[in-house]
Amino acid sequence: MPLQFATRLNNVETSAIRELFKLLGKPGIISFAGGFPDSAMFDVAGIKAAADAALTEEPGGALQYGATEGYEPLRQQLAAFMGTKGVEVAPDGLIVTTGSQQALDLLGKTMISPGDKVIVEGPTFLATIQCFRLYGAELVSAPIDAHGVDTEQLEQLIVEHKPKFVYLIPTFGNPSGALLSLERRRKVLELAVKYQTLIVEDDPYGDLYFDPASPPPRSVLSLSKDLPGSREWIAHCGSMSKVLSPGLRVGWMIAQPELLAKATMCKQFSDAHTSTFAQATAAQYLKAGRMPATLANVRKVYGERARVMGAALTRELGDAVEFTQPQGGLFFWARLTGKGGKVKDAGEFAKRAIEQGVAFVPGAPFYAKDPDVSTFRLSFATADVGKIEEGVGRLGKAA
Amino acid sequence: MPLQFATRLNNVETSAIRELFKLLGKPGIISFAGGFPDSAMFDVAGIKAAADAALTEEPGGALQYGATEGYEPLRQQLAAFMGTKGVEVAPDGLIVTTGSQQALDLLGKTMISPGDKVIVEGPTFLATIQCFRLYGAELVSAPIDAHGVDTEQLEQLIVEHKPKFVYLIPTFGNPSGALLSLERRRKVLELAVKYQTLIVEDDPYGDLYFDPASPPPRSVLSLSKDLPGSREWIAHCGSMSKVLSPGLRVGWMIAQPELLAKATMCKQFSDAHTSTFAQATAAQYLKAGRMPATLANVRKVYGERARVMGAALTRELGDAVEFTQPQGGLFFWARLTGKGGKVKDAGEFAKRAIEQGVAFVPGAPFYAKDPDVSTFRLSFATADVGKIEEGVGRLGKAA
Repeated sequence: MPLQFATRLNNVETSAIRELFKLLGKPGIISFAGGFPDSAMFDVAGIKAAADAALTEEPGGALQYGATEGYEPLRQQLAAFMGTKGVEVAPDGLIVTTGSQQALDLLGKTMISPGDKVIVEGPTFLATIQCFRLYGAELVSAPIDAHGVDTEQLEQLIVEHKPKFVYLIPTFGNPSGALLSLERRRKVLELAVKYQTLIVEDDPYGDLYFDPASPPPRSVLSLSKDLPGSREWIAHCGSMSKVLSPGLRVGWMIAQPELLAKATMCKQFSDAHTSTFAQATAAQYLKAGRMPATLANVRKVYGERARVMGAALTRELGDAVEFTQPQGGLFFWARLTGKGGKVKDAGEFAKRAIEQGVAFVPGAPFYAKDPDVSTFRLSFATADVGKIEEGVGRLGKAA
Repeated sequence: MPLQFATRLNNVETSAIRELFKLLGKPGIISFAGGFPDSAMFDVAGIKAAADAALTEEPGGALQYGATEGYEPLRQQLAAFMGTKGVEVAPDGLIVTTGSQQALDLLGKTMISPGDKVIVEGPTFLATIQCFRLYGAELVSAPIDAHGVDTEQLEQLIVEHKPKFVYLIPTFGNPSGALLSLERRRKVLELAVKYQTLIVEDDPYGDLYFDPASPPPRSVLSLSKDLPGSREWIAHCGSMSKVLSPGLRVGWMIAQPELLAKATMCKQFSDAHTSTFAQATAAQYLKAGRMPATLANVRKVYGERARVMGAALTRELGDAVEFTQPQGGLFFWARLTGKGGKVKDAGEFAKRAIEQGVAFVPGAPFYAKDPDVSTFRLSFATADVGKIEEGVGRLGKAA
């Protein structure tokens, strides 16, 4: 008799992307498929100094069990860091999570009963879809454009489905790269209050804008101070993964006290607490004041790569693709037009691209419902500008 | 309108122990309440060297996203470490978890549908009870004695309840300190095969035996090699927390391939992966060969503390308490007899003890059902021998 697994596993399936990733081992392939930052950008010296300081100044704290809510010195540093981004929050107004993926898991565990509706963007982060489905959520997909989620349609969907919460990546979304406009951000806050609906703002990319003179609108959480009564309806997830290091697995969540308390209880039985060693290292890194220079560096390098990729796409693929040039984040989101007799199905395009020696991810798996099979995602984060030029040239041959 | 939380939260309650822990801040209190190792025992120099080596030799791997299954060099080191303990396992026969607490969470997520039965020891690890209940498990409590779970009664309970799995801490259980006998270990394996029932062997304390000349019986997983067909029914959870450092949050699980694959999928959506920084540090620590000396040191120090506590309990409390001297682990498990007109309720005893300046944990919360309110747990891990003598003296006054 084989093992009988939990029924919740019937709600998820092995990712189509995983199958594609197996092909990435092919020699000489240029990959635009990943969703991760460039290892070459990590401030290894800074992290090494921070880890050393953590083990020298506070070895007991860094190596012992810690509070489920998070390591106090890190909570203080994160509260100050959020302050620089227009969010007033006390250290006990946030909890530390094992990457922001765990914040999503805790929101699922804390909020979702089987059969509950959750509204997500279409397309949205793949691991969010599966994470919430494991808790029995029925996902509703809200359409987006280059300015983020369509708030008129979002309002209709909230009215129709009465969701447990709405999950958005307002700033440089994955996979969309879209930036929710200031006007729509304010509208989202109004909807939260009007319908007493929790809004989850996932913000791993908000610091990764390319033009320091033209930062994106403030976060939905930050804007909540302009609308009385709205803040309690926002749960904001942050992360060190895209700007400093994913390997630390340090994220955080800011939310109203009751939700934080319930999420903390769930976290206690999920992993007790996030690695105090990683937390103390992150705290020392922030305390050392290295973050501004790190952010300036990643903005400059990723910004250049994005510009090179955009120009190459226009040059090599012309009107065979449509896309909006991203102003931040890690991704281009593009659509095959089929013009000039070129390929229109992104799955077929991905296969031909692999034959030409370049990889990317088709867009369909990023939709909870009704996928647009002509879409695809390109990451410009991990290839240098020379490889980007060459890779997009190969895409031109594959189209 | 307040937030509506998930129905699964109705299955758990705030721990009674948490309330007690709030009293620990009282000045001058001697605490036997904790469940953690002594920070003073951490090999800080060794961990610092390991972290430095990880960031020097493999900065990309240590700071980047990693495979959900675990960081390959650590899986290799853990496979070799398990080999020294009589378990043959390939690196891909285990997954790394964020502490062994996460292994329990993944077992819950992977295996438990709401209403499923799970058999645990009475008493058992408190966070296990709550963790499984959050997934909707109905817990069945199997009685134990100083030699661990009563396998005759366990068989009856398996027949009666057809559990999804049986959860045991066979070696120096928390809170019981009990050591499952070799004979019973073999019986557990027979039951697993006979009833095709998964046995979860949680083994965070197995390396913490006090007499190097007289180690405990081999793990149930190790013994499975003597009974054909039994190994596939064992899921074994290990941890670095009690012997090296809880703050790393590095645990692991060994199980049959299908269960590991499903647990890995669940982990992908729980925290993506365990901190690669912590994993690379643990891998370097094991590679450096420091573990044998670290183990020898903790065995010696905790062994002495256990001997001192046992002698003091006998001297100060006499026949007012019953206990079995532990041969390893971190805990004494004791029962108030009420003899000589002494206190018989451990909750009342705990209150009086706090007044005398010493803290411990009453036993009732460790039972999933039918608590024995005369029981209590004493940790000898974090107080030195002087404090142990003084603290037990205070217990004598409180009894």
